[in-house]
Amino acid sequence: MDENKPHVVVLGGGFAGLSAAKELAKANVSVTLVDRQNHHLFQPLLYQVASGGLSATEIAQPLRYILSSQTNVRVIMDEVAGIDRGNRCVSLRKTGSLQYDYLVVGLGLKTSYFGNDAWEAHAPGLKSLDEATEIRRRILMAFEQAELTQGSEDSNTEIEFVVVGGGPTGVELSGSIAELSRKVLRDEFRRFNATTAKIRLIEAAPRLLPVFDEKHSEYTLRELEKMGVQVHLNSPVTEITDNSVTFGDTQIKTNLIFWAAGLQAGKAPRTLEGVTRDRAGRILVEKDLTIPNDDRVYIVGDLVSLVDCKEQRVPGVAPAAMQTGKHAAQQIRNSIQGKPRKAFKYFDKGNMATIGRTRAIAEFKGIKVSGFFAWIMWLVVHLLFLVGMRNRISVVHNWFWAYFTWCMGARIITQKPYSGTLVK
Amino acid sequence: MDENKPHVVVLGGGFAGLSAAKELAKANVSVTLVDRQNHHLFQPLLYQVASGGLSATEIAQPLRYILSSQTNVRVIMDEVAGIDRGNRCVSLRKTGSLQYDYLVVGLGLKTSYFGNDAWEAHAPGLKSLDEATEIRRRILMAFEQAELTQGSEDSNTEIEFVVVGGGPTGVELSGSIAELSRKVLRDEFRRFNATTAKIRLIEAAPRLLPVFDEKHSEYTLRELEKMGVQVHLNSPVTEITDNSVTFGDTQIKTNLIFWAAGLQAGKAPRTLEGVTRDRAGRILVEKDLTIPNDDRVYIVGDLVSLVDCKEQRVPGVAPAAMQTGKHAAQQIRNSIQGKPRKAFKYFDKGNMATIGRTRAIAEFKGIKVSGFFAWIMWLVVHLLFLVGMRNRISVVHNWFWAYFTWCMGARIITQKPYSGTLVK
Repeated sequence: MDENKPHVVVLGGGFAGLSAAKELAKANVSVTLVDRQNHHLFQPLLYQVASGGLSATEIAQPLRYILSSQTNVRVIMDEVAGIDRGNRCVSLRKTGSLQYDYLVVGLGLKTSYFGNDAWEAHAPGLKSLDEATEIRRRILMAFEQAELTQGSEDSNTEIEFVVVGGGPTGVELSGSIAELSRKVLRDEFRRFNATTAKIRLIEAAPRLLPVFDEKHSEYTLRELEKMGVQVHLNSPVTEITDNSVTFGDTQIKTNLIFWAAGLQAGKAPRTLEGVTRDRAGRILVEKDLTIPNDDRVYIVGDLVSLVDCKEQRVPGVAPAAMQTGKHAAQQIRNSIQGKPRKAFKYFDKGNMATIGRTRAIAEFKGIKVSGFFAWIMWLVVHLLFLVGMRNRISVVHNWFWAYFTWCMGARIITQKPYSGTLVK
Repeated sequence: MDENKPHVVVLGGGFAGLSAAKELAKANVSVTLVDRQNHHLFQPLLYQVASGGLSATEIAQPLRYILSSQTNVRVIMDEVAGIDRGNRCVSLRKTGSLQYDYLVVGLGLKTSYFGNDAWEAHAPGLKSLDEATEIRRRILMAFEQAELTQGSEDSNTEIEFVVVGGGPTGVELSGSIAELSRKVLRDEFRRFNATTAKIRLIEAAPRLLPVFDEKHSEYTLRELEKMGVQVHLNSPVTEITDNSVTFGDTQIKTNLIFWAAGLQAGKAPRTLEGVTRDRAGRILVEKDLTIPNDDRVYIVGDLVSLVDCKEQRVPGVAPAAMQTGKHAAQQIRNSIQGKPRKAFKYFDKGNMATIGRTRAIAEFKGIKVSGFFAWIMWLVVHLLFLVGMRNRISVVHNWFWAYFTWCMGARIITQKPYSGTLVK
């Protein structure tokens, strides 16, 4: 680390921040990457940890390990408290403050309960490994409890899972809970019939997966229903308590509620002054991803609110995050070398979502695929982008195993019930 | 499950209880297996989870999955509160009580602090996945903290790990922490030199691994010292606080203390009346593993205190646990069929311990091996006994990867610091 080189501080080790740091490998800068976790998390597969298909360590890789050979990067495991543009510094919870010459903000979004923060305790979101492990614990414990009570006096034991939010996460999570109950756990309980578990997916909008083609929304709905998921559309949730969820005139008695309905910016990116934000707290950026009147601060990843020069809205997906991170790093290099900065052009790699085993949908530049072929595409793409060859082999092995045996191996209940807050 | 068949209740899904349940597959009985966890844990590899080499799910397998095709077994996830021989019933925390015709007690041992229970919070033991994950968190966080403070005013950052107990667990844990600091993490920190971490192994007895040949104890000591572990023999620990450990005249300032020094029976097996116990709470059993004056209660696994008919003391190791479990099940079958019960004969499969990569010791019927060949033996034996082909493939893959790359992939910090008690 050379103190005389321009200092680039990258906040966040997700897809965006990590891409920025890597892109600066050969630049004449010193880089500090800050993340409150010690690992990069492959979020697109997080739902498989929640449903017991993969273990936490298979979709995470230590940031230090990923960047160990890139000697111009220092990794700091700390939490960002605030950003002070005037003094060009970032304050961290433990380490104090960090001066920067260039700042790349890739802090992502956190779960939003649309102002109802009290719902969080009853309906965990799915953004971190801790949350995924907690959701796994709640799902598996529900079946264990049902087996204990089934056959006693009160013998109408029922399990009811409710997933709120019909985006990709909600679809994937409800689909995999359905597979767990209908297939994986079918023969493992002697008294309770695991296949009787009810699974509901609740969506406020009139269709599932609104970013996809309408035909695909219908396909998804049909396939989920075949798998045993009851889908409620046009059903905004109005109340969640420790033992119920209410939408429209319906109240479901359950404490198995999982939240995949909304995202918003966290506290740290909100300390950035002099910027305009959208309703979720995303920051309106210039065409080159800098913020207005400050060419030293870049916003990358899910925090970006931008319609690019090709009139495309940059979406909150992993490919967009990687592209914005890389672009920001390139513009920093340009600035240092006295070259002009370029506008960001989003290359749309299409959209994919998986509904269950052998069922997925994929859209790319007008080409729309669903079913088995889309599922194979989904597998390949997710493996290619999973960081680390070791993790790739491990995930392939697990998927093959699950495919042929219907055994999901990571169905281990660890951790005591969470006492702290689930979402930071 | 047939209510008219004799009911065998097996307490504990460890090596002993699981072997007993499996051995009863073809017997004309109905079996209930009770464990407070949902998984069988392969304890011999637990230290590799603690040091980030394997993930928790790789060494655990859901009990229901293992026994799913054995239709005469019902699995209950519950905690044993007490055993009432008079009424032939076991009381469980959640489910109430279970009547038995035959009882197999394989509840194992828990960590013992020799009466100093306050030490537990400062020096976690290594008996469960939760504890292993907590130890991993403490180890990895120590390096992260050191990287944060290193280079500030106070620049003599030091990390000091203390492992108490020179049996196999203590040797394996201190050895793998040494490898972590000397090899795996060597190039991952920019300011803190990870190889400077001090690792101490403290043993009250005059030598390490007292069940092994003296020559092997010396070999282990030498190899550990080569790897950078400072070994203190004849050093009973007299005090542990939140920031220090004291042995003899030495006090080490550290909060990184791990306990592998002692084991004792938990509360539930202590509720069994009319038996004699040794100091650790192990139960003195008859030659056939029943308890005195009660041929319906068998003790199996680590709880057994017995010198068998070949004058061998049955040790607290996995092969002995499996053999006692199987033997108890066979005698129950004999009793039901009106055949006489047989005395238990321990078949000594020898002892093994691993010190580090490519170093291990093995002893079998007078044959004593150390070094690389012993290490290969250790690998093969541990893989053979690991439950589940999926886990075997996964562990082999991880070991190969670690062997060739020195990358230990499971170095992920999850979980908030434990608020509850670590050892139950």
